[in-house]
Amino acid sequence: MENRSMTQEVTLASWAQKVKQSTIQQLLAVATRTDILSFALGLPAAELFPSADYAGAMTRALAADSRILQYGPPWQPLKRQIVELMALRGVRCREEQIFLTTGAQQGMSLLARLLLDFQGTALLEETIYSGILQAVESLQPELLTVPTDPETGMDVEAVATHLAGPRRPAFIYAISDGHNPLGVSLSQEKRRRLVELARQYQVPILEDDAYGLLRYDDQALLPMRALDDEWVFYIGSFSKILAPALRVGWIIVPERLMPALSALKEGNDIDTATFAQRTIAAYLETGKLASHLVDLRQAYKARRDTMVQALQAFFPVEARWFKPGNGMFIWVEIPTAGDMSEVLKIAIEKEKVAFVPGHAFDVNGSCRSTHCMRLNFSNCDPERIEQGIARLAKIIV
Amino acid sequence: MENRSMTQEVTLASWAQKVKQSTIQQLLAVATRTDILSFALGLPAAELFPSADYAGAMTRALAADSRILQYGPPWQPLKRQIVELMALRGVRCREEQIFLTTGAQQGMSLLARLLLDFQGTALLEETIYSGILQAVESLQPELLTVPTDPETGMDVEAVATHLAGPRRPAFIYAISDGHNPLGVSLSQEKRRRLVELARQYQVPILEDDAYGLLRYDDQALLPMRALDDEWVFYIGSFSKILAPALRVGWIIVPERLMPALSALKEGNDIDTATFAQRTIAAYLETGKLASHLVDLRQAYKARRDTMVQALQAFFPVEARWFKPGNGMFIWVEIPTAGDMSEVLKIAIEKEKVAFVPGHAFDVNGSCRSTHCMRLNFSNCDPERIEQGIARLAKIIV
Repeated sequence: MENRSMTQEVTLASWAQKVKQSTIQQLLAVATRTDILSFALGLPAAELFPSADYAGAMTRALAADSRILQYGPPWQPLKRQIVELMALRGVRCREEQIFLTTGAQQGMSLLARLLLDFQGTALLEETIYSGILQAVESLQPELLTVPTDPETGMDVEAVATHLAGPRRPAFIYAISDGHNPLGVSLSQEKRRRLVELARQYQVPILEDDAYGLLRYDDQALLPMRALDDEWVFYIGSFSKILAPALRVGWIIVPERLMPALSALKEGNDIDTATFAQRTIAAYLETGKLASHLVDLRQAYKARRDTMVQALQAFFPVEARWFKPGNGMFIWVEIPTAGDMSEVLKIAIEKEKVAFVPGHAFDVNGSCRSTHCMRLNFSNCDPERIEQGIARLAKIIV
Repeated sequence: MENRSMTQEVTLASWAQKVKQSTIQQLLAVATRTDILSFALGLPAAELFPSADYAGAMTRALAADSRILQYGPPWQPLKRQIVELMALRGVRCREEQIFLTTGAQQGMSLLARLLLDFQGTALLEETIYSGILQAVESLQPELLTVPTDPETGMDVEAVATHLAGPRRPAFIYAISDGHNPLGVSLSQEKRRRLVELARQYQVPILEDDAYGLLRYDDQALLPMRALDDEWVFYIGSFSKILAPALRVGWIIVPERLMPALSALKEGNDIDTATFAQRTIAAYLETGKLASHLVDLRQAYKARRDTMVQALQAFFPVEARWFKPGNGMFIWVEIPTAGDMSEVLKIAIEKEKVAFVPGHAFDVNGSCRSTHCMRLNFSNCDPERIEQGIARLAKIIV
């Protein structure tokens, strides 16, 4: 230990030598401070978690069978329940097409590694959930990007242009509803066109639908998986509709991918925690999910509306945003505001309010979103939302 | 759907086109059949799980704080408890060196990807835990292998020869105690020498110590991490000492690796289930682990001894094995027995007994272990062990 200065350092894989801590990760410590009013992280509201029902489900499951704590094959009753849940979302699928994962993030990570070769190519939006970038980072891919329209979503004609070009992407990553970070939902016409392109060019779509069931307005569009069961690989999660801390999600893929996925999963973490699978299955068994979803939507809708009203009331006239129909985020652009990373420092220091600077979601090192901010509305009650937006506005104006 | 035969298939990454389902995975379905007496999987005994204590810990934790179901940073009190646990194992470490993982398998997978470049080189034994092979498979590495002595472990002079050669491995994978599948523990002399080599050649050792605390005899050797805190990266797990189904493990690494590890982990599954971390912390808080370990060791020791006695009583004279001091496995070689994959089929069909054929642990497609079997002794009570070995012997003799 004394000779630390003499010690050579361990050689990391080439990707790891360049890696930086993610903005979200840096913000995790700040955003969980009790003195900070945080719009930063994509956290569901802890006070709406079905804690008591979970406690009951766990106690029953533990008493019934000690194998709930054992390694085990995927729990078939949970797959059946997911088939039913997907029907609520307008998707027809079979148990054999469902693969359980340690949250949606693992679904994304496994699918990316299943499809993407080292230094391969992937296609995604130029402003996108940073988790997909982290999921592919160690493969050092070339990332083809397309713009996103704030009202209708991903530019699918730009997708078509890439697909007709020389570099064939291994997949197209897309979010149909409640885009993270932009909040937008893909128009019906674009869903159809994207699926058509996926078929035509035989490039699968990874459809990240973590927020699909958190819908606040009347018109519900079907996810792309409802339009095609061969070229759309669906990624779902219990994290946003129940609670994140059991880490259970699922993907829906053509059955022939199961052997390779299983091998990859086994090498990754052996299995999805049996206890978590069984607890969620026992919860779903109670039949309470439907009314829980109604409660969640009502609460989050009120928070969304409060945030929109507060933005209108307090933010400068240059600020622009669209009201999201799904999810947890409002994306605010303020062309006059300069670098939001700097604004964030001041916001935390002076007003004790946090958000995620738009740059955290820029792909390929671009700086197109430095003047933007992602605001989460699910994790604060309406009163705090109004307070927080008013405080934030003091820094921005 | 009707035109399925016309549909082109999705293009998988190159590694995935070659992937086969693991033997262990194929056996999972068979080995969990209630009519099968299984020595196949590395399952701890479910009847010894601290189910009631877990139920209490969960109920208390859920009632105390709904954030137990939220995303969150690693739970610091658990890191403190792991520091204490490691002291029991003779290892001094600091909380800052501990990184929580979704089980030991994820620790292995993250470290492999942190260190190993695409098509890089790794060094391990020619008969080894198949999970490390799965953890590196998608990176398509060159695997340098060394033999293992059944009484003293890994051939460290063969390691030295490789290290002096032209291909520098990114890491050396080693199991100090209760080797999976061979059962052997590394001799003190070899531990010292391996650490010396790691330092000299600046190649880290991934020390997989999943079985280190399951020790059945008096002489306990210190893990290699106790000899060096720079070049030994330790992999630990609660799966074998408490229960697997919460999926919590840890790795101990130099602090400077944390940013890259955190980024990799976040892209993989965001965080290690908060609920699982908090439950284990609440269990450890009760102070019951020490006596639980005493109970486990006593029970598993009795099972090991019963299996050894049954092998002596029933197996043919050509069969060879060594009594393991740690872990869950006895490795049996029967030079006269032919291909154990064939023996397994008959054993399942005629005697309803399962084991893992040695070939499942062969590296680089070698067939050196086709005449061997891995027998698990932790997951059957002594009476069933005796019965099962007697039934298995009928097939082999």
